[in-house]
Order: sequence, then structure tokens, then C-alpha cells
Amino acid sequence: MTQFVSHLEAAIDGSEIPFGGLVNMHAGRPVWVRYHLDRVRSAVTPADIARRPPSLWRYRELLPLPTNVEPVTLGEGMTPLLHCPRLGQLLGLSNLYVKDESQLPTGSFKSRGMTAAVSLAKWLGVKRVALPTAGNAGGAAAAYAARAGLECFVFMPHDTPTVNQFEPYLYGAKAFRVNGLINDCGKIVRDGAERMGWFDLSTLKEPYRLEGKKTMGLELAEQLGWTLPDVILYPTGGGTGLIGMWKAFQELKELGWLTGNTFPRLISCQAEGCAPIVTAFDKGERFADLFPNARTVASGLRVPVAVGDFMMLDAIRASGGKAVAGSEPAIAPWMRRASSAEGIAVCPETAVCFDVLEKLIAAGDVARDEKVVVFNTGAAPKYLEALPVDLPALDKERIDWSVIEK
Amino acid sequence: MTQFVSHLEAAIDGSEIPFGGLVNMHAGRPVWVRYHLDRVRSAVTPADIARRPPSLWRYRELLPLPTNVEPVTLGEGMTPLLHCPRLGQLLGLSNLYVKDESQLPTGSFKSRGMTAAVSLAKWLGVKRVALPTAGNAGGAAAAYAARAGLECFVFMPHDTPTVNQFEPYLYGAKAFRVNGLINDCGKIVRDGAERMGWFDLSTLKEPYRLEGKKTMGLELAEQLGWTLPDVILYPTGGGTGLIGMWKAFQELKELGWLTGNTFPRLISCQAEGCAPIVTAFDKGERFADLFPNARTVASGLRVPVAVGDFMMLDAIRASGGKAVAGSEPAIAPWMRRASSAEGIAVCPETAVCFDVLEKLIAAGDVARDEKVVVFNTGAAPKYLEALPVDLPALDKERIDWSVIEK
Repeated sequence: MTQFVSHLEAAIDGSEIPFGGLVNMHAGRPVWVRYHLDRVRSAVTPADIARRPPSLWRYRELLPLPTNVEPVTLGEGMTPLLHCPRLGQLLGLSNLYVKDESQLPTGSFKSRGMTAAVSLAKWLGVKRVALPTAGNAGGAAAAYAARAGLECFVFMPHDTPTVNQFEPYLYGAKAFRVNGLINDCGKIVRDGAERMGWFDLSTLKEPYRLEGKKTMGLELAEQLGWTLPDVILYPTGGGTGLIGMWKAFQELKELGWLTGNTFPRLISCQAEGCAPIVTAFDKGERFADLFPNARTVASGLRVPVAVGDFMMLDAIRASGGKAVAGSEPAIAPWMRRASSAEGIAVCPETAVCFDVLEKLIAAGDVARDEKVVVFNTGAAPKYLEALPVDLPALDKERIDWSVIEK
Repeated sequence: MTQFVSHLEAAIDGSEIPFGGLVNMHAGRPVWVRYHLDRVRSAVTPADIARRPPSLWRYRELLPLPTNVEPVTLGEGMTPLLHCPRLGQLLGLSNLYVKDESQLPTGSFKSRGMTAAVSLAKWLGVKRVALPTAGNAGGAAAAYAARAGLECFVFMPHDTPTVNQFEPYLYGAKAFRVNGLINDCGKIVRDGAERMGWFDLSTLKEPYRLEGKKTMGLELAEQLGWTLPDVILYPTGGGTGLIGMWKAFQELKELGWLTGNTFPRLISCQAEGCAPIVTAFDKGERFADLFPNARTVASGLRVPVAVGDFMMLDAIRASGGKAVAGSEPAIAPWMRRASSAEGIAVCPETAVCFDVLEKLIAAGDVARDEKVVVFNTGAAPKYLEALPVDLPALDKERIDWSVIEK
């Protein structure tokens, strides 16, 4: 076994924690995984990676699972990075790309975190996992838990999209609706952990979902020939992906794998109905207050308080980026506009990014020739409630061609 | 430009049709694409293909689009071939695999056919496409038409699953519900073709969806080290995938790329409520009668009449396989059982395959150590109506732990 993890590190105060036991948080805040990057550099090169199968596990040496342990996998990644000329033209951009995470198992980016977290949990002897979810995480956790043979408990807001309610049931998890938001669901997981023998799989409350999400940044760099784009727009609820990508870029820099010297500006996109990070960013604060009366159809963004708030805000600022809120009425139209322009199933959270992008272009914050990457974090059909559809009906006995021609 | 297509060939009578113009059927029956396989053999080797990006377009020389033309792509394929030990154990099989097509763009295998068909249609100057759909094909056609900048018209039965109604609307297609089945929808497309200037994109009514579906067989062979499994279970509505895979295997054999000498037995799986191919197979006939009163929750199998019936029946018989019907009440339980065992989102059509597989094992038609591959043709959450879910509710103020512990 070659072990590339050096240790764990508390994000709030830098305390070292040994790797190899079950860990949740330190002082109520998340924990980083740190690697022997010198060992990684000696063990593998980008050319080696290029020859491996197209799964996020190709970055094996930068993931925490010991290399002699089989991951719990559903064949996740790599997701395509799609050049979007038609959508770019609509926005006035000449170099627009969408990284389409909807093509992962369970149809969302959540599978990246879960393949890592469930692999580590299984390796460390966990039998039962539990988590709160704003939507897609519950389905992903249930799927990977099923693949691993673990029991899974999922708690979600009562008005979580129908498809997200369907998924954990499909995968045999024990799933419940709660008359509250994701933080209320999180409290149930905390309260029940001891009594139920649960390992808490909440985002950023264990160290490994972050490492799985980090692979979005690794893939992006590899797909761009080990360079990085100018701007990344990313919808942030819990923010694990944003934090993970920034961590990935730093690790790649230290490894010397990047051919360019510039880092992208990270744009954290939130919905105006739940924008705690935007509020904290605008106030110049490092920690965010709970956002009151959180409400948006972009269910993945209904995260009024995030334990990794300071990690997000640190990354956004270090990158020279911003946190910006998109408008609620723009969500459904942008879903359809972006999806119709390129055939990509743009979810409501990503629709928020396009509204934000339009604003940034108008304000001159994004230049028309910059290389811009927007993450489509989930498949639009998981959000039926966000875009109500009522197709016109035809009578097969008496076709009314004027309806069709209209 | 290197052109690997030799000509088109009418499936019913072998007539040659030149390649390069718009073609639908010949004598009311489908048309094959034939290649200069000697040129393919000189141009490319399996080792070359292994170095290409993980998209079905890696089999470029075995696809009909001229090599200097950019395909209309959403980054489709390769889909994972997942070993399923837990599900295998449940069935008593030691070598069970699922090829998970739910991870394609639009969440189903239909994207394979559409990337090919829409690429060819665009290259040949088509501006408007139309098709009938039993479900997933409409969404896939709409997505690829959007990506190509073509207009798309979709006609579907009035009780098509909600997600399938959502998709073409999302992608900006003109979609309609019809009080009938897919063949009634097909009639509208035929009747309107001239008046509306539509190119008919119905399955097997143009030659290229078949070529895209063929890549299921190419990928499977490559993933198994250029060998083939013993048995393939495949849910057949229109049957394009089954026919396409058999064609792929023959082409690979002629190329000399296969390291083994045996071909899989193809098992065509249909639902008892719509089983025209099973009926014809059992009667020893080459053509199938229209199946009356077609009805099944596996919406993709509600295809009472298929223009490629004889091509399916020829392939099944040539392979030493069978056509078998699964029982309707087994569908929902198998969706959940299979999905819970492995974390794969098993669709109703594939649930039918597991019911059929169980029967075949019981009858001794499939041996316990044979290498069996089941195709999961779509993502289960596209079929909310097939597995009704009503999650238990919790009151966040008064958690009833007995409900959770139950």
C-alpha cells in the first residue's frame, strides 16, 4: 500500500489530526486532508493519468483512499467540458464552456463527494450513515451506500423536489421529510448520531466529500491541457465544490502540473432568496450569518447556514472573485434559454449562474473574450417543480395542423 | 476527408442505395449502413482507439459521419460496465454486469442514436426534424436538435411519464401529447412530413440512429478486452439497440478485433402487456403482428409494432437467444430491488430484464457462472409514475425516534 495522505488539518486553527480514524469536525468546523505532494510528484505524472480510465479515480494519488483499497464506485466521471458557442453568443462571450455534471451517476455533482466519502467510511468500518440534504445529496448518498452495502438515513425538507424524494426510496435508504430546512434536518442527524449509531455524512462535516468534489477542479485542469480558465461560475449552497476546486488548484500548482500561472476568479452564485455568502462577502466578513426565511426554487441553494462559510469566503477572495446573487424570476427562463441553446439540461442552480454572468458582463466584470466555465451541477429534469410544463394535446382522429404549425 | 461508408443497403431485399443523400426507408423497411471494413482495418487499431477521449465518437471509423465533419455532441459515452456482485448473489449469478446507460446525456441510451442521427441530418442540410416517442427518445432528440440548432417536433402518448414531457419543452422543442400510442404518433409524423418540411427521425426510419446505438456493442467489447459476454439481456421496444449490437459484433468479427470466437445469446426482454416480438418468436415467425391493447408501466416498451421486427428476430435467432416477456407486477419491485442492491438507478424496462433473467436461470437457460450483461437503458427517476413514493414526515419540534428506528 502506498499512502499519499500526510495528515488531516483543522481548517479553523491548523491543528493536526492523524489520518486513519473516523473524523467529523474540529472545534465545530471542517477538516482538510493534506497530502505528501512530493510523494505524489514522484509516483505519477499527468501523462500517466492520461492513460487511465475516464473516472475521477484516475486522480488516485490525490484522493484519500489507500491505493490498495477498492473504491465504492458507480463509474463516476469524467464529465464533459462542452464548448457553448450558441449560448456564448446569446451572452456576448466568445469562450464559454459548461462542465456538465448532470452526466454523473444520480444525475448530479453530489456523486463525486459521495464516492469518496462512502469509500472512506466503508474502509473505516462504518455500517450506517446519515445526512441532511437540500436535494441531490440524499440520492447520491443512498446510491453509494447501496453500492457499499451500508445502511443510509436521509432527512430532507418537506418541499424537496419530487425526484429527490424518489431517489433514496429507490436505493433502499430510510428517507424522511421534515417541516423545515436543511439545517433543521442536520440537527436531527446530530441529535440521533449516538442513539442510532450513525456516521454523519453531512457536507464538510466529514473530510472526504470535499476531496471527491475537488476532482471537478482536477478534471477541468486536465481537460484544458493543465491550464485554468479565467473565470468559474459555481452555484454555492454548502460550497464544498467551490472550496474543493480551489484546493485542487493549489495542489496542482504545488505539484508543478499547471502550465499556466494564472488562477481563475471564482464567482460564487446564490439565489437572492438565500444568499448568506453574498451578504457576508459584501460586508467584508469571514463568517456568514444565518440567512432568514430562505426561499428559492433552486432547492440546492436553500442552505441558510454553511459550516464552511469562511473556507468559501477565503477562496473567493484569494481568487479575486466575487459572491453574487441571481434574481428568482430569472431562474425558470434561464433554465429553458440555456437548455434550448445548447441541449444541456441546465438545473435551476446553474440558471442562477447565467443570470449572475449576464450581470457581470454588463458591469464589465467579465470580459467578452475571457475563458468562462459554468458548472451545471445537476440534471434539470430532477427539478420538475421549477419549470411547470403542460404540453398541448392533439386528437389523433382529428389533427389540428394549425396547433402544430403555430 | 476519409470516407469509410461504402453504401446503404435495404434490409428487406439487399438493394444498394448510395450514401450521401437524405434517406428514410426502402420498401417501407429499414436501411443498413455498410462500411469499407478493409479501409477501417488499415486506418485504425484497437490500440489507437484506447488512446482517444472516452466518447462514443472514438469509434469514428465505424460511424457514418465523414471524418472531417464535427459531430453534434454532448459528450456522450463511454458508459460504465459495472460488476454487480450483490445483485448477482441475489439472482445466483457469479458474473453479472450492468452497463449503465443512465449516465448518458438526457439520462438514457437514446442519446447514442441521436448524436449520430442529428449529426448526419445536420450535415445533409436538414433544418427541421420530427419524431414520435414512447418516452426518452423525444428528450434526446430535442437536446441534440438544440445543440445542432435544428427545429424539433415531438409527438408522444398522452400518458408518457412526466419527466419525458418536461424534457422536450426544456430544450425548446415543439412537443405534443396524443391520445394514442407511439404508432399513432408516428402516423402524425408521416402525414405531416411534406406539409411541415420535417425530416422523419423515427427509430429505424432513418439509417443512423442504428449506427449510434451500435456503439453499445463496440464499447462493451472494448471494455471486456475485445471479448464478448455469454448472454446479453436487453429491453426491446423498437429494438434498435439489439439490432445495432448484433451488427457491431459482426463488424468487429470481420475486422478481426475480437479475441474470442463466441457471440453472446441475445435475450430480447418485453413486458407481457406489450410483447409483439415474443409472440412472433414463439410462433417461429419473422414478422410480428401489431400487439393489441398495449399496456405497461415500462413506457419504453409500449411499442406495439416495430418496423425492424424481422431484424430483431433475425439477430435473436442467429445468436441462439430468445425473446421473453416479464410480468407486469414484477416491475416496480425489481426496480427497487436491483437499485437497492447496487446503487444503480434501474429503469422499469430493465426491471423487466431482471424478471426475465430470474426465469431463465430457474429454467436452466442461463448458467450460474456465465458472464451476463444487462443493459440499464435509462435513469429510474425519469419514471416517477412507475414507483410511487410517499416518504414519512417528521415534525422538527417533536422528533418521533420510533418512526426513524423502525
